[in-house]
Amino acid sequence: MREAYTDQLDSILDDLVIMTHQVKRAVSRATVALLSGDAAVAEEVISGDADIDSAREKIEEKSFELLALQQPVAGDLRQLVAGLRMVAELERMGDLSVHIAKVARLRTPNIAVPESMEPMFRQMASVAQQMVSKVAVVIAERDVDEAAELERADEEMDKLRRKSFAKILDEDWEYGVEPAIDIALLGRYYERIADHAVSLGRRVVFLVTGEHPVSED
Amino acid sequence: MREAYTDQLDSILDDLVIMTHQVKRAVSRATVALLSGDAAVAEEVISGDADIDSAREKIEEKSFELLALQQPVAGDLRQLVAGLRMVAELERMGDLSVHIAKVARLRTPNIAVPESMEPMFRQMASVAQQMVSKVAVVIAERDVDEAAELERADEEMDKLRRKSFAKILDEDWEYGVEPAIDIALLGRYYERIADHAVSLGRRVVFLVTGEHPVSED
Repeated sequence: MREAYTDQLDSILDDLVIMTHQVKRAVSRATVALLSGDAAVAEEVISGDADIDSAREKIEEKSFELLALQQPVAGDLRQLVAGLRMVAELERMGDLSVHIAKVARLRTPNIAVPESMEPMFRQMASVAQQMVSKVAVVIAERDVDEAAELERADEEMDKLRRKSFAKILDEDWEYGVEPAIDIALLGRYYERIADHAVSLGRRVVFLVTGEHPVSED
Repeated sequence: MREAYTDQLDSILDDLVIMTHQVKRAVSRATVALLSGDAAVAEEVISGDADIDSAREKIEEKSFELLALQQPVAGDLRQLVAGLRMVAELERMGDLSVHIAKVARLRTPNIAVPESMEPMFRQMASVAQQMVSKVAVVIAERDVDEAAELERADEEMDKLRRKSFAKILDEDWEYGVEPAIDIALLGRYYERIADHAVSLGRRVVFLVTGEHPVSED
């Protein structure tokens, strides 16, 4: 019983890893759409979100079956519930990629991000993508140390977001209100992706150690 | 066994109603802080979020105990898991109120929302508060019809958000970039509160009917 349970829990974690890769691709393609203004890529991200949603449904079904068949208690149960929360967060990261792609689509064939802000957004996106990659590793290898790295990467993201705010609020800002709003919202979407990555890392720490590393805000 | 389970599930739903009222107060006080620029009220919302977080923890503990003691299967299990998701969404709505309060605090003693936009934000906040109130009723009375009302209220919120965007992007916009960004982000926070309210309503429909009303985005 115990062993069957562990095998099936592992299989759910494997599914989460695959789903994390789907999310990583969504973040990456959304960024391409954003920085190239390519409407087809934006559409690909927007319509592709259905695959991430159905991955969520599949993993949820599997978790419910496992809950019903194995009736795990206490610690095991908490782990399965943690898995259910992880899948919800991954889906949300997919939604945030869709939000980014929709900003891109709204401005196409123009590019929402002014040229002078492009390096900053490239960096923001790169931090986000690296974080999502790291989440996949953390889940696959139950790597608690790598999970701690996510917290550091998140600080980098916060710094970038503050810098982007400084730019759009600078008196030298020459692009007007619309791009400033795009940038404020895009910054929020990338920041939320990073927040979810941190939260996923914390959930894995909880899965491995049974303890929450730090309180979530 | 079955009856004890139902009683305890009811008690969890009661706790969710109380927590929903806490969230409603947070949204309402955050709006007061926002539209008055009163730093003390903003601080109250920000520090008060700890109570909402601890309500979440209490309900989660109770759910885990129930899961462990009663070992519910299939439908019952899904209901408990739905409850766990509801509590997570309520906590998130508390966080969004904190975000609103933090924008208020950042601009105090000034008011983040320019006077000409105040009526629109008052309306947005009013829709959000009514939606949270409705969520409490929907949960308390398992009222599927009221849950459908939430979808309509959400359309109203989307319309208000679109109108607020039209204002800040209008060529007559005279307040510059900073208030425009505040308004874009504040609009997003209220909109997300409304989204969560809709999602909570759908979860209650699921609890009552065993069916998801519509696919979530």
